[in-house]
Amino acid sequence: MKIYLLDLGSLVIDRSDVLWHLDVGTPVRFPVYGVYIDHPEGKFIFDTGYDLDHVNAVLPFELPEQTPQQTLPEQLKLCGTTPDEIDYFVNSHFHFDHVGGNKYLGNATLITSKFELRSLLVPEPFERLGYSDVDWYERGRPVKFVEDDYRLAEGLTLFNTPGHTIAHISLLAEPEGRRPMIFAGDAVYTQETLDKEIIGGFHLDPVQSVEAIRHIKEMAREYDAEIFPSHEMETWDSWKHAPEFYGD
Amino acid sequence: MKIYLLDLGSLVIDRSDVLWHLDVGTPVRFPVYGVYIDHPEGKFIFDTGYDLDHVNAVLPFELPEQTPQQTLPEQLKLCGTTPDEIDYFVNSHFHFDHVGGNKYLGNATLITSKFELRSLLVPEPFERLGYSDVDWYERGRPVKFVEDDYRLAEGLTLFNTPGHTIAHISLLAEPEGRRPMIFAGDAVYTQETLDKEIIGGFHLDPVQSVEAIRHIKEMAREYDAEIFPSHEMETWDSWKHAPEFYGD
Repeated sequence: MKIYLLDLGSLVIDRSDVLWHLDVGTPVRFPVYGVYIDHPEGKFIFDTGYDLDHVNAVLPFELPEQTPQQTLPEQLKLCGTTPDEIDYFVNSHFHFDHVGGNKYLGNATLITSKFELRSLLVPEPFERLGYSDVDWYERGRPVKFVEDDYRLAEGLTLFNTPGHTIAHISLLAEPEGRRPMIFAGDAVYTQETLDKEIIGGFHLDPVQSVEAIRHIKEMAREYDAEIFPSHEMETWDSWKHAPEFYGD
Repeated sequence: MKIYLLDLGSLVIDRSDVLWHLDVGTPVRFPVYGVYIDHPEGKFIFDTGYDLDHVNAVLPFELPEQTPQQTLPEQLKLCGTTPDEIDYFVNSHFHFDHVGGNKYLGNATLITSKFELRSLLVPEPFERLGYSDVDWYERGRPVKFVEDDYRLAEGLTLFNTPGHTIAHISLLAEPEGRRPMIFAGDAVYTQETLDKEIIGGFHLDPVQSVEAIRHIKEMAREYDAEIFPSHEMETWDSWKHAPEFYGD
């Protein structure tokens, strides 16, 4: 398999929302990215960034920066494919900055949990902005519901990391020729999240969020895997970006 | 019964911690108070403010302002009693700004939940600062453990409002000659908390926190009670303070 990291723009939030209660009043710009996996069993996407029009309309205070190149179709073009060729997609969770490119995936089946879908449709009051982009789902969409750990394909496993949202999931990828990779989604915003076990300021369940960090660290030890946080410019800059890829 | 509100000083936190995610980076000063109830069945205290030395040592960034007059002994003196005469005390929860005067209550029995005590002793990582003042408990203390709603005395009822902490409790007081009073502790920081059902930025369980607000509003409707938020200068300023009192 080949694993491509797709650059889907950036947003700004307060550092106290990245690392709960730290440095209140300090804005930070962070990257938003997706993962495309070209695998012998199919083409998979994990997370699809944000829809620029949606953010400009509903959350302009997050100061989106997204060039035409930083969209799912253009990023997939760099990898030699198109949205129509994608077979399956997974969102770590349904917050707006992880589902924005779903609308392009016309032939792909969504793999998700009924619980996460319930939260998208009927969020808690404090989750309304997070789950504000529901348009992609209302257009109609083939769905495969899964619970527990789920084998997407050989060497591609979803595992549950709830807390940030009701049914947040992370992805373990085991490509040939390099260490396994854990895409931790918003269970791990930054390297500091891991080192200090500080959860993000957006969450459904803080206690579960701490457990999710520890579970991911345990998985990383067990598989000798590298953990990829979701929203940190420094770590993002240190990785290979599409059209470069990991694996094979 | 006579109900006295005791002025125990003030602190500063970010408005986004009073009302989760609102106005990040905006400091607000808020009052810290206790309630003394002189009742035919005994003398009761609900919440005891913060210990100035503790805050100066551990959380000086909350900018404590507490005159010698704004301590539990001096406030009780205004009411014609002393800490040694108190029979029972209850803390809505064991965060440092609700337990600071406990150390003065040498002859009083603590009424609490085993769960709240567990959190004081072994907090979640993100609760460590909240539960940082444990000295008053380590000195030794007679305790009566209660669960569920609990009748403290005629017209004085504790009821569970978890979410802010594992076993946060509120107090319903039904004095003669005026509407019942609900002391909601940190389940309700401000009037806006009630009106918009926005929880505070410090919490163990956000979903339970929302439920607690709704439960308190439901109780207020049922008893035609007035709700007393914990930490808002405007509402505090509008109430009678010791040596004035409510009831009788």
